Amino acid sequence: MTSTPPDYQPDAQPLRAQLQSARRPILLGVAGDSGSGKTTYTHGIRRLLGNDMVTSIPLDGYHREDRAQRRRSGRLPLDPGNNHLDLVEEHLRSLRKGRPVEVPVYNHQTGCFDAPQIVRPTPVVIIEGLHALYQHLLPHLDFSLYVDTDREVKWRWKFERDVSYRGHDPGELEDEIQRREAAYKQWIDFQKTSADVVVKIHESQLAQLAHQKYAGSVPDNCYHLEIVLTPSDLPLPALNLPVNLNAVMDAGTRPFMLAAVPSSYWGKHVNVTHMDGVMPLEAMQRIEEDIMQLTGIAEDLEACLVTEEAQNSTMRFAQSLVAWPFLGHVRAKLMEWQAEDLR
Amino acid sequence: MTSTPPDYQPDAQPLRAQLQSARRPILLGVAGDSGSGKTTYTHGIRRLLGNDMVTSIPLDGYHREDRAQRRRSGRLPLDPGNNHLDLVEEHLRSLRKGRPVEVPVYNHQTGCFDAPQIVRPTPVVIIEGLHALYQHLLPHLDFSLYVDTDREVKWRWKFERDVSYRGHDPGELEDEIQRREAAYKQWIDFQKTSADVVVKIHESQLAQLAHQKYAGSVPDNCYHLEIVLTPSDLPLPALNLPVNLNAVMDAGTRPFMLAAVPSSYWGKHVNVTHMDGVMPLEAMQRIEEDIMQLTGIAEDLEACLVTEEAQNSTMRFAQSLVAWPFLGHVRAKLMEWQAEDLR
Repeated sequence: MTSTPPDYQPDAQPLRAQLQSARRPILLGVAGDSGSGKTTYTHGIRRLLGNDMVTSIPLDGYHREDRAQRRRSGRLPLDPGNNHLDLVEEHLRSLRKGRPVEVPVYNHQTGCFDAPQIVRPTPVVIIEGLHALYQHLLPHLDFSLYVDTDREVKWRWKFERDVSYRGHDPGELEDEIQRREAAYKQWIDFQKTSADVVVKIHESQLAQLAHQKYAGSVPDNCYHLEIVLTPSDLPLPALNLPVNLNAVMDAGTRPFMLAAVPSSYWGKHVNVTHMDGVMPLEAMQRIEEDIMQLTGIAEDLEACLVTEEAQNSTMRFAQSLVAWPFLGHVRAKLMEWQAEDLR
Repeated sequence: MTSTPPDYQPDAQPLRAQLQSARRPILLGVAGDSGSGKTTYTHGIRRLLGNDMVTSIPLDGYHREDRAQRRRSGRLPLDPGNNHLDLVEEHLRSLRKGRPVEVPVYNHQTGCFDAPQIVRPTPVVIIEGLHALYQHLLPHLDFSLYVDTDREVKWRWKFERDVSYRGHDPGELEDEIQRREAAYKQWIDFQKTSADVVVKIHESQLAQLAHQKYAGSVPDNCYHLEIVLTPSDLPLPALNLPVNLNAVMDAGTRPFMLAAVPSSYWGKHVNVTHMDGVMPLEAMQRIEEDIMQLTGIAEDLEACLVTEEAQNSTMRFAQSLVAWPFLGHVRAKLMEWQAEDLR
């Protein structure tokens, strides 16, 4: 989605300053099933780039029907025809020109639409929802992410969220989950074939690496993550993960796995980065500091700090591994615009 | 095999200087099948500690029968009764006291015994062979390593070495390989249950980590290695492997995998470190420099440099991961002796 930019030159302004004076916002599309964990990754971008730089637009508001109407019609929100995707496209056009848009709002608690909200574009605008990478939206996006969570993980999360937090009926939810699986396959899943980055989330597979009997302990929400990424030459400084090898000689070592493997993925050459287990906190902090060095967030941290969510270090690592190529694409795009302006 | 030493104190002399003035040599036992790659790991210790510090004694010389005698008797060298293990023990006793020993020498080319050689103990003496971790030898050893190479890998190597380099007859070798497998299981394999470190060598398994179709390329001699290590609190400085995360966004990235998982292994708690693929050369060099910092080899590099073998970076990484805990045990042992001397 971006052309090949030149190598990294360290003389640049911090990315935040560059974004503030950019001629138009960067548009990021994040697609994936409801409850697949999309916000984790947009949250990572907020945390590392600065909350004040980023606006998220949930595509839920563009559903044609509210919950009561869906119950009568039997149509699912997964059906693209049941969404105002034409309006999403119109809004993307306006946002690209830096114009505010009136975003419709769906309320998951009540199942009804609330009053629409005026969204003024910040330097980065994220559209986040079931159809964010649909064919006629893609050309308007500067970067695209698909979150592809295993069925078992997704169902467990959805159940926890929709029943405990949104107050849905468990029996109805179970029916809905079963019914929507084919619709997900037909209308949502294929979008991953055109994403710049795909995040795949599986249950932890560390026990398979034990030699005779796994003796590790990991936090509850520990997953095997894959970041599937189309390689490109991004203008980014070195980013080193310091793995402390003494930890593997320590009786209390936390299990972890890290791997990178080139693959073919839907006809494209990609690199797949695997991670599992518990990344050491110090290593995470080092990486985050390096990323924040690029964005320049440290210079006005109070203005833009995201209140920390409870995150384990592996989720934070995955956030960094998604934010980093995104920031590389942002920098490439800014350089491209600067070069155009000079012509 | 060592008691729990105190934490690392960075004020110490380089390890080489300490070893030179130590009251007795450090004895290291390395067991594993013939052709399992034992010398790779002793070579790593030589390379990182200094060639002048290390003597290796191959246990082949302690076979009771030469090739012609074995052909007549039908007995295998794997049979402990067909080896002078009593003499090995006697030699270990002498070496511990710093006394020279007369080591018998078996010539793999001729299949006969050559004239014995006088071995004067250097600060580190390695005994290396089929029975190096036998029960009555173990108490004389300060550190023990077992090299456990998968049958397929081992057979391939043995064939290459014994036919191409040692000039054995391929047909005879095939028969011998088949016949000795049960003997290996009965007399050799079990020694791994009492080793401080076990190195397991499998064919590369990276293709299993590809997402749809593996698209990587790795050098011919690329393996999946496991270092199985009984955790202990070793007096060692931090050793950080810098993993360059930008490499995973690069079109030419070399596949790799690194993992650490606590396991139960023959009734012991161990940590298993997995590695596969190609470790970046710069990262290897950083680690080796840090290890050489501890040993102090840089101060007289010319005197002790090992001529570089053709090694891929993953083998070098494995050498470092074996040498590092060994050096930790050496330092612990030296501290123990110093404390005893002060009493």
